Amino acid sequence: MTFAVTILGSGGALPLIKRNPSSQVLNIHEKLFLLDCAEGTQVQLRRNRIKFQRINHIYITHLHGDHYFGIMGLITTYHLLGRTNELHVFSPGPLEEIIQLHLSASNTELRYPLIFHTIDPEISKIIYEDEIVSVTTVPLAHNFPTCGFLFREKPARRNLRKEFLADREISNGDLQKIKGGADYKDASGEVHKNKDITLDPPKPRSYAYLTDTAYHEPVIPIIKGISLLYHEATFMEDKAKDAEEKFHSTALQAAKIAKKAKVKKLILGHYSARYRNLGSIHEEAKSLFPSTIMADDGKVIIVNHDE
Amino acid sequence: MTFAVTILGSGGALPLIKRNPSSQVLNIHEKLFLLDCAEGTQVQLRRNRIKFQRINHIYITHLHGDHYFGIMGLITTYHLLGRTNELHVFSPGPLEEIIQLHLSASNTELRYPLIFHTIDPEISKIIYEDEIVSVTTVPLAHNFPTCGFLFREKPARRNLRKEFLADREISNGDLQKIKGGADYKDASGEVHKNKDITLDPPKPRSYAYLTDTAYHEPVIPIIKGISLLYHEATFMEDKAKDAEEKFHSTALQAAKIAKKAKVKKLILGHYSARYRNLGSIHEEAKSLFPSTIMADDGKVIIVNHDE
Repeated sequence: MTFAVTILGSGGALPLIKRNPSSQVLNIHEKLFLLDCAEGTQVQLRRNRIKFQRINHIYITHLHGDHYFGIMGLITTYHLLGRTNELHVFSPGPLEEIIQLHLSASNTELRYPLIFHTIDPEISKIIYEDEIVSVTTVPLAHNFPTCGFLFREKPARRNLRKEFLADREISNGDLQKIKGGADYKDASGEVHKNKDITLDPPKPRSYAYLTDTAYHEPVIPIIKGISLLYHEATFMEDKAKDAEEKFHSTALQAAKIAKKAKVKKLILGHYSARYRNLGSIHEEAKSLFPSTIMADDGKVIIVNHDE
Repeated sequence: MTFAVTILGSGGALPLIKRNPSSQVLNIHEKLFLLDCAEGTQVQLRRNRIKFQRINHIYITHLHGDHYFGIMGLITTYHLLGRTNELHVFSPGPLEEIIQLHLSASNTELRYPLIFHTIDPEISKIIYEDEIVSVTTVPLAHNFPTCGFLFREKPARRNLRKEFLADREISNGDLQKIKGGADYKDASGEVHKNKDITLDPPKPRSYAYLTDTAYHEPVIPIIKGISLLYHEATFMEDKAKDAEEKFHSTALQAAKIAKKAKVKKLILGHYSARYRNLGSIHEEAKSLFPSTIMADDGKVIIVNHDE
């Protein structure tokens, strides 16, 4: 089952020709979640051949333009393309009011239900849950109400050992119970312990999207041990003072969070437009946390079960 | 002196990878006017190497997203880049309210003066004028309050004939009077008629930007004889019914307006996303109005004095 992130925009506040501001698509079992929606996101969705009508959930970290100025365009395009499916938008702040004002200014009555979920960026709680995933807010330390999002895949059901299944006929009802963890009594009355006849399912995967934020240790217990962490790295250590003043992080600080939280892998992004060569940002983070990769527009990061 | 249009976006309502929605830069004597500002305009300005800090005037035809969703991004980028110059925004409808709501949602106090001019799209009047240009509104027939804009270069001053200047010393004060049209009395008391000692200046150039609109003859007297007309051509004649219903024009209708208004040259644009090959749109318009050119993202159209 897929678990992958496509980076649509890896840049900071200024949109550049080759680097868009924040936006990504998270694909969990072919369910698509859009994380942030900067200006140009809809074209980036097309460019990366994402079936964007299948996005039903948009999560906005905060109302700085480089994280949401593309949402009106996407909402309008869905309308023009005849969308009928519900679209859920999760965001702190008055995004609903902003969108309603745009819609009323153009006399637009959307053809599909647009459902707002205003979130409290100051507490960590589950804000969405279905059979495959839960989404938890992660309060961040920006100069503005901001929260990250943690996606946790639900544990899969247990797998029957092939050698046990081989010469037996087991009813579907019993099969489902075994997959759920139950022991199994066969026709002869023999009881087979669940642990003897099943294999552990793959470990659930997890992804946290943390941007924008200063170095902020309170996120560590929330994201402990996750498979993949996206952490903003607007600056490098030589601009640590700028980072502090502007409530952003350095590459080294992102690596520190990744290391302390014992995550499996780290992606950096939200680079300041001053950096043309990302090599040194990468080196800075890898010096502390070797499993660091650099976000780049169009890059796809697949999270495998063994990671 | 320059008089040129750079097309930043030539498409209709849906932003595509290779075709952006409406936006253009008009350069008149190195003064830059931005016409419409769809999503992605700021990146198109960078891509086309426009010195976009020099834009002090933005004209928005109407509040459909494909004509203004990029303005918040541009306004914010100016702020981040430390702009201090005034920015004037001309638009029908509640654009000021929309922008103020975005700014207040992000606690942004702009570092530069942003000056709104709410225009009445139902009357044709001069809404801006300086020493080089006047800008006139052109009411259009869309399904929504919309107006086009007509830019008229101011007449240049008269040029002195070289042979008259050759062996004379004329004070600067007198020179300016002659250029303004006055006769000249020389030291001997001889009076030289202005028409004998000067040449006509080049004819002022003019450009009208008309989008979005159904076929609408009332524009004809306003744009009579202008150098260059941009007229939307969302559809072709085979979709004339769609054009009528949606208050858009066909390529042939755009050509009819150009012909009846006796303009020198016509640019088509705002093509529906259904058209991948623009050749037939071009042919349709040229069949009636041969001096038709097709807008394309990145195309620059220079208006020479002899046109």
